[in-house]
Amino acid sequence: WKSLPSLMHSPLLSPQLLNSLTPEENTQCQHGLYFQDGERRVDYILTYHIKKPSSSRSNRQSSRFTDNAFTRSLRRGTARLGRPPPPQPRGDPEVASQDHSMDYHEDDKRYRREEFEGNLRDMGLELEKDEDTKTPGVGFVKIHAPWHVLCREAEFMKLKMPTKKVYEVKQCSGVGAKINTLVNKATEPLHPNVEENRGQHVKHLSYAFSREKQHFNPLRCSLFQLLYEEWASYSVFYKYQPIGLVRKYFGEKIGLYFAWLGLYTQMLIPASLVGVIVFLYGCATVDNNIPSMEICHPRNNITMCPLCDRACNYWKLKEACGTARASHLFDNPATVFFSIFMALWAAMFMEHWKRRQMRLNYEWDLTGFEEEEVSDHPRAEYELCVMQKSLKKEHKTHKVLIAYSWVFTTEKEKLTCRDRLPAYMTNIVMMLLMIGVTFAIVFGVILYRISITAALHMSNNPTTRSNVRLMVKTTAAIINLVVILILDEVYGAVARWLTVLEVPKTDRSFEERLIFKTFVLKFVNAFTPIIYIAFFRGRLVGRPGSYLYVFESYRMEECAHGGCLMELCIQLSITMLGKQLIQNNLFEIGIPKLKKLIRYIKSKRRSFQEEEREKKLQRYETDHFLEPFAGLTPEYMEMIIQFGFVTLFVASFPLAPLFALLNNIIEIRLDAKKFVAELRRPVAARAKDIGIWYNLLRGVAKVAVIINAFVISFTSDFIPRLVYQYMYSPDGSMHGFVNHTMSYFNVSDFQDGKEPMDPHHLGYQVEMCRYKDYREPPWSNTPYVVSKEFWAVLAARLAFVIVFQNVVMLMSDIVDWLIPDIPKDISLQIHKEKILMVELFMKEEQGKMQFIDSMTPCDGKGRNNHAPIARSRSIPHTHSHTHDVDYT
Amino acid sequence: WKSLPSLMHSPLLSPQLLNSLTPEENTQCQHGLYFQDGERRVDYILTYHIKKPSSSRSNRQSSRFTDNAFTRSLRRGTARLGRPPPPQPRGDPEVASQDHSMDYHEDDKRYRREEFEGNLRDMGLELEKDEDTKTPGVGFVKIHAPWHVLCREAEFMKLKMPTKKVYEVKQCSGVGAKINTLVNKATEPLHPNVEENRGQHVKHLSYAFSREKQHFNPLRCSLFQLLYEEWASYSVFYKYQPIGLVRKYFGEKIGLYFAWLGLYTQMLIPASLVGVIVFLYGCATVDNNIPSMEICHPRNNITMCPLCDRACNYWKLKEACGTARASHLFDNPATVFFSIFMALWAAMFMEHWKRRQMRLNYEWDLTGFEEEEVSDHPRAEYELCVMQKSLKKEHKTHKVLIAYSWVFTTEKEKLTCRDRLPAYMTNIVMMLLMIGVTFAIVFGVILYRISITAALHMSNNPTTRSNVRLMVKTTAAIINLVVILILDEVYGAVARWLTVLEVPKTDRSFEERLIFKTFVLKFVNAFTPIIYIAFFRGRLVGRPGSYLYVFESYRMEECAHGGCLMELCIQLSITMLGKQLIQNNLFEIGIPKLKKLIRYIKSKRRSFQEEEREKKLQRYETDHFLEPFAGLTPEYMEMIIQFGFVTLFVASFPLAPLFALLNNIIEIRLDAKKFVAELRRPVAARAKDIGIWYNLLRGVAKVAVIINAFVISFTSDFIPRLVYQYMYSPDGSMHGFVNHTMSYFNVSDFQDGKEPMDPHHLGYQVEMCRYKDYREPPWSNTPYVVSKEFWAVLAARLAFVIVFQNVVMLMSDIVDWLIPDIPKDISLQIHKEKILMVELFMKEEQGKMQFIDSMTPCDGKGRNNHAPIARSRSIPHTHSHTHDVDYT
Repeated sequence: WKSLPSLMHSPLLSPQLLNSLTPEENTQCQHGLYFQDGERRVDYILTYHIKKPSSSRSNRQSSRFTDNAFTRSLRRGTARLGRPPPPQPRGDPEVASQDHSMDYHEDDKRYRREEFEGNLRDMGLELEKDEDTKTPGVGFVKIHAPWHVLCREAEFMKLKMPTKKVYEVKQCSGVGAKINTLVNKATEPLHPNVEENRGQHVKHLSYAFSREKQHFNPLRCSLFQLLYEEWASYSVFYKYQPIGLVRKYFGEKIGLYFAWLGLYTQMLIPASLVGVIVFLYGCATVDNNIPSMEICHPRNNITMCPLCDRACNYWKLKEACGTARASHLFDNPATVFFSIFMALWAAMFMEHWKRRQMRLNYEWDLTGFEEEEVSDHPRAEYELCVMQKSLKKEHKTHKVLIAYSWVFTTEKEKLTCRDRLPAYMTNIVMMLLMIGVTFAIVFGVILYRISITAALHMSNNPTTRSNVRLMVKTTAAIINLVVILILDEVYGAVARWLTVLEVPKTDRSFEERLIFKTFVLKFVNAFTPIIYIAFFRGRLVGRPGSYLYVFESYRMEECAHGGCLMELCIQLSITMLGKQLIQNNLFEIGIPKLKKLIRYIKSKRRSFQEEEREKKLQRYETDHFLEPFAGLTPEYMEMIIQFGFVTLFVASFPLAPLFALLNNIIEIRLDAKKFVAELRRPVAARAKDIGIWYNLLRGVAKVAVIINAFVISFTSDFIPRLVYQYMYSPDGSMHGFVNHTMSYFNVSDFQDGKEPMDPHHLGYQVEMCRYKDYREPPWSNTPYVVSKEFWAVLAARLAFVIVFQNVVMLMSDIVDWLIPDIPKDISLQIHKEKILMVELFMKEEQGKMQFIDSMTPCDGKGRNNHAPIARSRSIPHTHSHTHDVDYT
Repeated sequence: WKSLPSLMHSPLLSPQLLNSLTPEENTQCQHGLYFQDGERRVDYILTYHIKKPSSSRSNRQSSRFTDNAFTRSLRRGTARLGRPPPPQPRGDPEVASQDHSMDYHEDDKRYRREEFEGNLRDMGLELEKDEDTKTPGVGFVKIHAPWHVLCREAEFMKLKMPTKKVYEVKQCSGVGAKINTLVNKATEPLHPNVEENRGQHVKHLSYAFSREKQHFNPLRCSLFQLLYEEWASYSVFYKYQPIGLVRKYFGEKIGLYFAWLGLYTQMLIPASLVGVIVFLYGCATVDNNIPSMEICHPRNNITMCPLCDRACNYWKLKEACGTARASHLFDNPATVFFSIFMALWAAMFMEHWKRRQMRLNYEWDLTGFEEEEVSDHPRAEYELCVMQKSLKKEHKTHKVLIAYSWVFTTEKEKLTCRDRLPAYMTNIVMMLLMIGVTFAIVFGVILYRISITAALHMSNNPTTRSNVRLMVKTTAAIINLVVILILDEVYGAVARWLTVLEVPKTDRSFEERLIFKTFVLKFVNAFTPIIYIAFFRGRLVGRPGSYLYVFESYRMEECAHGGCLMELCIQLSITMLGKQLIQNNLFEIGIPKLKKLIRYIKSKRRSFQEEEREKKLQRYETDHFLEPFAGLTPEYMEMIIQFGFVTLFVASFPLAPLFALLNNIIEIRLDAKKFVAELRRPVAARAKDIGIWYNLLRGVAKVAVIINAFVISFTSDFIPRLVYQYMYSPDGSMHGFVNHTMSYFNVSDFQDGKEPMDPHHLGYQVEMCRYKDYREPPWSNTPYVVSKEFWAVLAARLAFVIVFQNVVMLMSDIVDWLIPDIPKDISLQIHKEKILMVELFMKEEQGKMQFIDSMTPCDGKGRNNHAPIARSRSIPHTHSHTHDVDYT
């Protein structure tokens, strides 16, 4: 099969032997790669548990096959031969545990297995059993797919093959060429040392595979070695990925994931650059910022109302100087620019991905391929469920049944809404419960913050008191992070459990439902605390004299003077960094290694002939101890949540793209290592796009626009500053802004028992204190009622949201419209290929015509028109298919 | 060709003879349909102008071919043969007029024509010339495409053909089937009396065309007759369209247009029903509406400020009673519901269209077909431009040239941005100028309204005065309508002229640019007056004592008391109805008839042998006098502007869908008649979708959401009413709302010379008058400044816009997501077809294997695997293509 790299992507015929060893082991284990005759290569391995003759402890022995898609396509294959599908040969653990009579089932399974193997042989595959291995309790079936079977399937799938016909890909000439050469030279070290990147000036014309036209490809050796060195290594972190090789080894689906991850990482470079510039702009202008200058001014003498009941005292606004200066870093006009930039960046990223996908589709000859409906076959669990249902029905009508009778009855049976109702109800209840748990935890952290703040304010140690705010914020953020990390794992398991409960019919719907549930739960989990801080904190406070209380004694927390943006920023950075560091390093690297170790130790303990293990294990036996491939869902999910951090609240945290970039540079190589060395080699699967993930990304990008609009207009002080400058400022400057945003409170209006215990703390009798809100002063006709300024600022904030949202959406649409979905050079090449095909076709046609003309004496046009078919039929070596398809 | 209806859609081989005659004529003209030998059918006609030997008046004789796409595909054909493309055989009038030496060009044209005809013959087509007709000055070339040419092209295009293999389309069983039968019976009279709708229970399996597998289709007679009776007739207005037949006769592109129009009309039925209900709800609740009751209350004694300077008097609010009641018809809570409904309706319509398109693609066997790049060949005008450029260049370098040398040089030449700069500048300037003209005219109408109102108020006739408002409104709306109608035609011509100036490279880009320009100009034209009334009128008024003036004397107009919604409604209904009635009836029916008549009279006058005309004309000669087909752009454009009326301002005019429905029922049959009997038969073109129009529809639907949000929150009084009810009303009812919305004005604050001439008109001395605005009263500290209520209402309005827009967008996305793009039954059928294909394939495969086995003695598996190709090559009657494509 090595000679047919393009054929490796047939789901039916992919070589499934897992070459996931270090190169040294690779050469040593070479002998495990062939049948006993040493000639036929092993293309795929099936493993199953067998009852050990020496022990009877284990009562969970189900025939387990490594891969579902493969067995399914095999089943499809046998169905083609006109036979009924073989009774389900797979029994998953959940299913197996429901069986009770062991001996009967052991026989049953052996019978099913044999029937399944028989079907495989009927398909033309060749099998070799290997039960007598050094790994007890596991049976191996080696499969070899002969050449003609590969060809048959390739032709059937209309797989496109490169032909000998090559054509030159047009290079720019003149200045363009010079620039191109220069760029190529400059980026030379960025390309991996892989052959595929050289000599892209010619392309092979591809054509649907047909057995008559095949030709051996030059042998390509040790793909695995190349990938190991040029891709799955941290030392090449700065290079492009050899996507073509990844696709050759793992198939299109995984190739697309890495291509996507690569593009995303690449796109993060400009975003993080701009983000850093915005941050630096904030740092540079912090000393020219009039509001924070006013707050920090030594002659500033504003007395603020206490931040908590009784324990807290009146305080001087000057104390908020540090926070106010820090806030400016994230709350300046550059942030507004940056969130518009990031919205457009997201649109650009989507567009670029479409183009990249198109280019890959073209390079991988997938242009004609339509998504196969392989996964439309019902899952085994679904069929089992249906079987149980019909068995129950028959049990009710008191008919005695032998096994397998359900095969004939299930045709009409299916799971109705009524059968699924309990599962659906459980789903809804559990989802709501989980979301409720998240909310409860966030609420708990709020209470923690409130009570700790109050308690620490009681302490007499002045350094404690001054550090209170920062300590509380940080510990609360860390608690939130830990909870998020724990719940993330819990929610992943819950979502899977709920989806299993639902018994979806097909693999595709299983995957989609699982992704949807996981996405909802993980997003809620990650973003609830952040959304609380951004939009609710400090807003549900009430006012002095009439504060809002929860549980009658906890007064809701306020923000520091500079708005909540600073706290949002702390929360965001801790959550994002913590998640990435811990989830990546601990979970993704540590846990698989641990699992592998446990698995190895377990099997060691189980084996009784320890000395046999000392011998060299067969290649497929070592692979058996690797972690099975669990799908790309976790990888994509991790990235989409990161994408959320990068886009959703970017207005408050312009460094997010930078952190994401740093993480992803590691992530690519980490994933590569995992795929190459830690997991069993996944079945290659064809795919044209990244499916549902693209829609989720689009959704996140859409939500990001509105969330950023709200962050800028409601969380930051951007709009109040603008309103002050253009409506209220006497001289059009920001002087007086701080005073304007604060209302007056007459301390005699405090409710009894809520006033500070130590009113003389500041050294003088306080009569009026100030608080941040737009309310009428105590001396107006309607004291403490929201003022006209409040409504004006609110209207301005809302107007900004409308303008921002619609302008950004319009600009995104324009970006969408300006960037063509198909890259110019690809569309030119497709056009060129079409013309070449036309030329070939016409040449052939002409040759045929001349042939006909030479066969028949020319006798006018009339006859020539009306009987060409009959004539061409009589000529040998013209088309003569054996298909018995008749056109009507 | 009658035997090959499925082949008729090849752009190369479509029969171009125009059967556009009444059935009686059809049978009489039968003899014109064949070559002189009476055997070969005429499939296509080319016409060109020839120099009449008897006269030398006409100096504009260019060879004109009926169709561009056809000649282009012919050119493509000849290019295939490895020759350079023939020098442009077409010279459009613009081009021809630039030539000066007549004799030379006459020869040149003849030469080109002959070369072109030679190329056609090389392609295998058969020609017959007919210059000696009864129509002087016109030459006809009849083309016959022989059977083998048709087959070759069909195979080349991978045209799918129905095979003999049929399968049953699954019917529902049980209750579903009964309901289905019932529905079928009920809708029986709605189906056209056409064969295609019967017997849909089986479907032929389709497969890419191959010459080996062809089979004659049963002859189908008189498609034209059927279409004439069952489609292009007003008497069948209530029936579904026979879309399959339309597609058979006109090709997929036109078939899709009519399918789209049909679905749109169908979708308008529920929309107009709901619209009528909403309108009736308004009628029914008009007497319970508290604000209008308060206005009309006999004891209501509010004195209003005058509506214009000097000439107008103070007036009693009671006088606005009628307007207030009428406003309620369009300004009630049901309208809010209706605009949400219509936004979802638009999303639903898009989704349904996607599904319908998918279904049609499946039924028309287009599922595998990829959009052809036929139109990527440069246009003749572009090539001429390039030629002129290179000629000029060579002229500069003083080289003497013979004609045609450009053929070899143009390869490298192309039009650069610099060449196009003047055209682009003209485009931008003209577009801005045109939009400016629209704005100026709208402004002119405003001035008209203002001055006429003031003038009529001067009159002493009391009945005139009371009818002033209505008269002015109506005449202004009619003026607007007339201007829109005239400018529509002007803008269409301007857009085409500008696009010709641009010299786009391909037909596709020409069409896209033309559509874009036309769309922008016509939309601006149709909606500018409406947008002015909806969002600007009555807002830029100023306040009593400080009104806003244009040209120093014209005071900006105010709205009637009930808001501007009423006037918006009048403007909308007059524009929409007028546009539809006049453009449809006058322009679409009248003008083509007139043109035909003029054309006929002209040719009559020109001919000298009048008696010859008395003879029966050949069929293609009568068709020559029909209007040529000008593309679907005007039809789609008309519909998309109507779609704009139906969705954009639906909040103010719930009857719009009803009017659109009535118009479209006529429109379908009108267009059908036009296509069948008034136009030359268009070249059939394949298309999978409606292209750019879908995007424009989506765009209009998106804009509709935000415009409706603004109409509801700013134009109607919906939000002020809500704010009053929940924030200011003492008892939570609407009592006092009218009073609350009006501010006080002290008449002593009038500027000099602006106060009413007759202050005692109402019979008493007015000291305070009222006006509709939220401003502080004269006795406050800040008189006439906008009040807190103003800001509160503004904030509420803006908040409503945000909520409405996002909720509706979310709901549209959910609709998008819930409705699958591929109908369930179609995806099932596609799946079934795939399985059938697999079965066929496997059966064949098995047969082949058995054959191989019987040929070779079985000697172990090893050999069987490695040399099957060599073996299968040696066996006769297995595949043996003559393609010389080699796979590497």
